[in-house]
Amino acid sequence: MSGKPDLEAGRVELAHGGGGRAMTRLIEELFAAAFDNRWLAAGDDAAAFPAPAGRMVMATDSHVVTPLFFPGGDIGSLAVHGTVNDVAMGGGRPLYLAAGFVLEEGFPLADLRRIVGSMAAASREAEVPVVAGDTKVVERGKADGVYISTTGVGVVPEGVAVGGARARPGDRVLVSGTLGDHGVAILSAREDLGFGTELQSDSAPLHGLVATMLEAAPGVRCLRDPTRGGLAAALHELARHSGVGMRIREADLPVREEVRGACEILGLDPLNVANEGKLVAVCPPDAAPALLAAMGGHPLGRAAAEIGKVTADERGFVEMETAFGGTRLVDWLYGEQLPRIC
Amino acid sequence: MSGKPDLEAGRVELAHGGGGRAMTRLIEELFAAAFDNRWLAAGDDAAAFPAPAGRMVMATDSHVVTPLFFPGGDIGSLAVHGTVNDVAMGGGRPLYLAAGFVLEEGFPLADLRRIVGSMAAASREAEVPVVAGDTKVVERGKADGVYISTTGVGVVPEGVAVGGARARPGDRVLVSGTLGDHGVAILSAREDLGFGTELQSDSAPLHGLVATMLEAAPGVRCLRDPTRGGLAAALHELARHSGVGMRIREADLPVREEVRGACEILGLDPLNVANEGKLVAVCPPDAAPALLAAMGGHPLGRAAAEIGKVTADERGFVEMETAFGGTRLVDWLYGEQLPRIC
Ligand SMILES: Nc1ncnc2c1ncn2[C@@H]1O[C@H](COP(=O)(O)OP(=O)(O)OP(=O)(O)O)[C@@H](O)[C@H]1O
Ligand SMILES: Nc1ncnc2c1ncn2[C@@H]1O[C@H](COP(=O)(O)OP(=O)(O)OP(=O)(O)O)[C@@H](O)[C@H]1O
Ligand SMILES: [Mg+2]
Ligand SMILES: [Mg+2]
Ligand SMILES: [Mg+2]
Ligand SMILES: [Mg+2]
Ligand SMILES: [Mg+2]
Ligand SMILES: [Mg+2]
Repeated sequence: MSGKPDLEAGRVELAHGGGGRAMTRLIEELFAAAFDNRWLAAGDDAAAFPAPAGRMVMATDSHVVTPLFFPGGDIGSLAVHGTVNDVAMGGGRPLYLAAGFVLEEGFPLADLRRIVGSMAAASREAEVPVVAGDTKVVERGKADGVYISTTGVGVVPEGVAVGGARARPGDRVLVSGTLGDHGVAILSAREDLGFGTELQSDSAPLHGLVATMLEAAPGVRCLRDPTRGGLAAALHELARHSGVGMRIREADLPVREEVRGACEILGLDPLNVANEGKLVAVCPPDAAPALLAAMGGHPLGRAAAEIGKVTADERGFVEMETAFGGTRLVDWLYGEQLPRIC
Repeated sequence: MSGKPDLEAGRVELAHGGGGRAMTRLIEELFAAAFDNRWLAAGDDAAAFPAPAGRMVMATDSHVVTPLFFPGGDIGSLAVHGTVNDVAMGGGRPLYLAAGFVLEEGFPLADLRRIVGSMAAASREAEVPVVAGDTKVVERGKADGVYISTTGVGVVPEGVAVGGARARPGDRVLVSGTLGDHGVAILSAREDLGFGTELQSDSAPLHGLVATMLEAAPGVRCLRDPTRGGLAAALHELARHSGVGMRIREADLPVREEVRGACEILGLDPLNVANEGKLVAVCPPDAAPALLAAMGGHPLGRAAAEIGKVTADERGFVEMETAFGGTRLVDWLYGEQLPRIC
């Protein structure tokens, strides 16, 4: 069957989404070759796998980040981490991923190969294979290079019950590490702000950390990855769903010096900036020490900190004790200062 | 919480994808309101559901159809049917859907509501709820209104084993109804060709038909929905994966008169035109009569027909006995004449 794509110098053609030989060859030589598993090799309309009885979770995210390549990752690795993390925030051990690509006509196949390669590497590292996919092509000017939608399914271990409505007054609030790294890395790549190479996205798969946490403290009540909208949005969402308030301490928020500096220059608050390799956890007070210790012992939780607690406040206010000894309300922003951050 | 979207006169803003109040309100008032189920009401990062032990299937499709509204459906109903059908083609009973939206800044919220409403109706009709979603917004000119990626999971009944590599020489090839309706309906909507209102997309969920078929003939070997690339591409894919040839009879191909006429005017072959509510099935010869009868008894299989058989041909050729008594090879096109058909 002819129609071999030129993965070095070629570009995405409308034919690559046309359902004919060109598409089949592109899927086989680029996508299925990189993701390399028996489900894609079978080429069937749906991927079939054995599943254990029990509770499953499903999560989906579309990715439209710009630029496509940034310090610490690219849209491919991000698309794996983003969805693996939402499955993990549901208490699930991620099992399988599906990925839908919307490609812009004219996009260089070499760039696509790089993206798919990094997606495949992230999927291998996370041990979550991409078992199903889809490839659509739109005309030049109807997309921005590549958009990737990933969906994940996972299984929830017996006894685990996390959910955004489970926070109770008195519970402790913990974060797994420094805040704002992803958003500031994207922004500095976008604007070429020259903050130096130290600023990297924190994009990472969190399911290993979550497994460690649930083992140390099975009573964890809420897990959430503070992505778009940052920590502030995540706390507001939890407060709203649980019908409680939150009170955090500014002095205890882990923020890298470079990120703090960049935020000052850019007029941003690290509380509102997106993360892609961090989580917030809410747990009963007596479970907090063990949970914090378990987090600190995991490579992705080294800078974990207890940052505050859940309050009895039906208005759902999120307050912060400032570094200067006062208290202020943490805003829930209308939009976000940084579009297309993920 | 303020930030209520104006669903009548408003437009999509970048803020609707920003992870703040504007996004939360849009998700609650538009998406979760339309899809209306407890998973979305929970607002968690992942949707959790009980799953039976056994074989599961997963399929994904991104949808970029233009125009967004067409006779017989719109991108919303199509996004449900497309993925439900791929799950069904894996032999699965579809259980849950996830949907990721990429929205273009400035897109009218009233149109979005119409699309989401028709998606919700299709999901209710198919009895497959949308339990997880995602909302991204890109700047004006970086998308074309709305793109929707849907992913479905389902369970495969005990004893069912379908797959594209299972066709054997002598097997019979059946289609569930008329060919080319979807592609020609889209094209006529796009070009305003004035073929009249009779030309409707066949977009429909096929899992009910598949359940009926598998009950009547559990030995069905292959199921495939001839979407992009039409029947020709589906037969070529099956031939390739099974290492066999196919021989079909032009006289037995069900094609509507209007579709045949439109194809002649447009220079298209109904064999290459996309369908969204049809399937091809391959079964052992002795199962064919029962299978055909079962298909004919289902509302979505009324025009079902046996159209040919599987041949021992390692080259994987697809041949057709023409209406004039000759034989010709059925091409596997490089691309497709009709981009963005789904
Ligand atoms: N970008 C991709 N990455 C990995 N696998 C892919 C990709 N695109 C398609 N596939 C896989 O290739 C096979 C064919 O995909 P295709 O989209 O043609 O099937 P389909 O969904 O039945 O057709 P259509 O999209 O026209 O409805 C499937 O097994 C699918 O999972
Ligand atoms: N278009 C939509 N339709 C239905 N549900 C949606 C839609 N968009 C989001 N949701 C649901 O709203 C909730 C919040 O979605 P959101 O995308 O903010 O979460 P997230 O994936 O954790 O964040 P991010 O996308 O920034 O990583 C989830 O329960 C999600 O399933
Ligand atoms: Mg299909
Ligand atoms: Mg997410
Ligand atoms: Mg597809
Ligand atoms: Mg999340
Ligand atoms: Mg499909
Ligand atoms: Mg999301």
